[in-house]
Amino acid sequence: MSTSDTTTGAALAYVEQHRDAFLEELKALLRIPSISTLPEHKQDVERAAQFVADALTRTGIENVNVIKTAGHPLVYGEWLKAEGKPTVLLYGHYDVQPVDPRDQWLSDPFEPEIRNDNLYARGAVDDKGQMYGLVKALESLMHAHNGSLPVNVRVLIEGEEEAGGEAIEAYVKEHPERLASDVALVADTGMPAPGVPSLVYGLRGIIYTEIHAQGARHDLHSGEFGGVGPNPIHALALVLAGLKGADGKITIPELYERLQPVTDEERALWKRNPVDVPAEMMKEMGIDVLPGEEGIDPIERATARPTLEVHGIKGGFIGDGSKTVIPAEATAKVSLRLPPGLRPAEVLALLEKRVAELCPPGVKMTVHEINGGDAVLVPVDNIFMRAAEQALEQEWGTPPAYERSGGSIPVGALFDSELHVPIIFMGTGLPDDNIHAPNEKYHIPNYYHLIRQVIRFLEIVGSDPAILSRPAKQS
Amino acid sequence: MSTSDTTTGAALAYVEQHRDAFLEELKALLRIPSISTLPEHKQDVERAAQFVADALTRTGIENVNVIKTAGHPLVYGEWLKAEGKPTVLLYGHYDVQPVDPRDQWLSDPFEPEIRNDNLYARGAVDDKGQMYGLVKALESLMHAHNGSLPVNVRVLIEGEEEAGGEAIEAYVKEHPERLASDVALVADTGMPAPGVPSLVYGLRGIIYTEIHAQGARHDLHSGEFGGVGPNPIHALALVLAGLKGADGKITIPELYERLQPVTDEERALWKRNPVDVPAEMMKEMGIDVLPGEEGIDPIERATARPTLEVHGIKGGFIGDGSKTVIPAEATAKVSLRLPPGLRPAEVLALLEKRVAELCPPGVKMTVHEINGGDAVLVPVDNIFMRAAEQALEQEWGTPPAYERSGGSIPVGALFDSELHVPIIFMGTGLPDDNIHAPNEKYHIPNYYHLIRQVIRFLEIVGSDPAILSRPAKQS
Repeated sequence: MSTSDTTTGAALAYVEQHRDAFLEELKALLRIPSISTLPEHKQDVERAAQFVADALTRTGIENVNVIKTAGHPLVYGEWLKAEGKPTVLLYGHYDVQPVDPRDQWLSDPFEPEIRNDNLYARGAVDDKGQMYGLVKALESLMHAHNGSLPVNVRVLIEGEEEAGGEAIEAYVKEHPERLASDVALVADTGMPAPGVPSLVYGLRGIIYTEIHAQGARHDLHSGEFGGVGPNPIHALALVLAGLKGADGKITIPELYERLQPVTDEERALWKRNPVDVPAEMMKEMGIDVLPGEEGIDPIERATARPTLEVHGIKGGFIGDGSKTVIPAEATAKVSLRLPPGLRPAEVLALLEKRVAELCPPGVKMTVHEINGGDAVLVPVDNIFMRAAEQALEQEWGTPPAYERSGGSIPVGALFDSELHVPIIFMGTGLPDDNIHAPNEKYHIPNYYHLIRQVIRFLEIVGSDPAILSRPAKQS
Repeated sequence: MSTSDTTTGAALAYVEQHRDAFLEELKALLRIPSISTLPEHKQDVERAAQFVADALTRTGIENVNVIKTAGHPLVYGEWLKAEGKPTVLLYGHYDVQPVDPRDQWLSDPFEPEIRNDNLYARGAVDDKGQMYGLVKALESLMHAHNGSLPVNVRVLIEGEEEAGGEAIEAYVKEHPERLASDVALVADTGMPAPGVPSLVYGLRGIIYTEIHAQGARHDLHSGEFGGVGPNPIHALALVLAGLKGADGKITIPELYERLQPVTDEERALWKRNPVDVPAEMMKEMGIDVLPGEEGIDPIERATARPTLEVHGIKGGFIGDGSKTVIPAEATAKVSLRLPPGLRPAEVLALLEKRVAELCPPGVKMTVHEINGGDAVLVPVDNIFMRAAEQALEQEWGTPPAYERSGGSIPVGALFDSELHVPIIFMGTGLPDDNIHAPNEKYHIPNYYHLIRQVIRFLEIVGSDPAILSRPAKQS
């Protein structure tokens, strides 16, 4: 038995002994309604930042700092005493999505409730639970190593992941030297099914916009102006239907041409996934079709093709009963998910042009960028990816699926482009975790799996001869 | 000078003497927020009904009764002592539209304010002002005739005109004998321009619906399900865009085929209108085009063609910032205006069929009827129409324009089909009165014009030998 086997065993035993405490601490964090997009929760967001900072300090992480920004604070901490060992940058976020529609929650989104081994709360899995799992893995390792760690770590936790992440972007771009690392570990992703661990090697980027339509200078009566007046809701409908037809194809010229194609190697890796992902997705949605681009495999559609989605729309009279108004304005929130090859700023310009083409006479439309982020594609033959694969196989008794995720974690692109590190995305969310939706949950056993797999990964990174002998900054 | 000239003069003088009182009374009525579609205003609606009943009683109208219904009350009163004279049914409504968007009102919608000879308040012109003008015309005639009237009158005022008018429909269908009359007078329409009186001889019907779209069984995350998940907002956009293209044509089969064509006689009458209606409409809307059906005259589009309008739409996240949700459901309020030839129930069935055809896979749509009403077309050669023309020419010094209105006054169709009376629509609203919109107003001189033209009309009906010698119930 090697030293690292011994310390790993001790760390895992520590997790077992502290199951209840680790869960109670997470519940306390989940009680803080740190909704980053809503200004009225600014103080809650700050409270959550302090909670995380305090937890890191108690763990023995050094130089813990709640960094003020133009937006919500960043929490930073480090432990850099493992001489000659790699440096791992651990990332998570302590902010959460809004909770509406509030009336569809079966329990208070900010009073965690356990039902059937699941912990229900906003942020349970995205990302408070997974982020806090990183902290608890460090705590367990600190204990097993008698107050030290098998690798150097930097911890960077943000509070604006659900709100555009401008603060972390500015910080990383301004101070890349303060975050110099060999690899980044991000626990903010999911698994394709219970029991099937996953390594996400690709993420889509995003451009998120608001399209505003203005018709007449004030609301009109449809009896008087129906037939001759501009209707901004109908104009938005024409534009949205024109941007993506019933065949699921986005009609923005050049979009598909610019796309970096999926390789045969990747398709072969996808086939190793034991889960029937399309069947699981239909089950989760409660429908028996998978709408979208005709002629493209659903897995590719969900992870490696551009999408255009309307997230919200508002205009005119929406109360009970009837009001025969033609409203003066209407607004829709529209985003495109962008696989590698498509850059947010370029796609925004293409979208603006296409919206202008599709907008009918009498209506003026403007497209505002809300936020954006680049795609990421980590080379699957990376040495740290091998370590992660080994850690997951140890923890789950089965090799991980290699997946692209359809989601966007802008920090992934940021670390990629600014810090030049490979990023290991190893999350334990499940497809039915209802992230960004009512009744978000975290499957409690997966919370402990995450803590343990992070322990295993850091131990391997700290002891694998291949990693230790690599040239500095190899990726 | 005939007797009727004398009494008319006395009644008009009475109006002049009571200008201030007539206006103050209307302001008191406008202070009651009798919004019929909002349940929280039920008591206000009842208060407005009682206000109208009290005003009729004070005027000398008999058997005044606030009639309870399944919805909001009807106010009825009569004066039937003019032996051998025709009976005129006077109609108006005391309920009003909601006020949202509230923040666009320059003054409190329920605290009437006078600016530039206009009275600003919700309901100022639609229809409290015009309805109350009928009452004040009766009061003036009562004074001039020493406590009697030149004709028999029945007064029926409803409180659900803006909310579907089910109560009046039930009442009229159950008790047509209680409303037996020779002609109905409705003051709930407008004039094409200041100084140009109008006789509206046609109204469009309407079918008002709510279309509900259901996608997945709960909200989805667009990162996870974008590309394979059903988006009910986008589905609604496809349906709305599919129902009416950018060319303004409604794509419901059979719709245009069933339409009763406009006659050459009508087009000739329209040409007598001195107002450049399309120019006025563009000015009012603040735009320099008139969107709508290609190849059809704007006046015809606005009054004699079917229209399809979205009045409101709601779905997903509409707050500040971003939320990458694919919502589970979305709803739109959609109506069609129906010229003669198109019946609400038939068009509803056609709409349902077309929506089902256009709805993309993975989304379920339902079309709920909110309310409906038939079109009306009164023969322009009617004898009471002649009396109205004479009254308007006397009052304004210029002959009236004959117009179809694009709006729907369901009670018109109801009186037509159930009471078999010609309906005289002689309102004094102006195109810029902002009905159903923020800053609704009534041009104060037009309030007095309305009172005076109703006085003149009732005097003529009570004294015209042609009317008095006609067979009973001629129309």
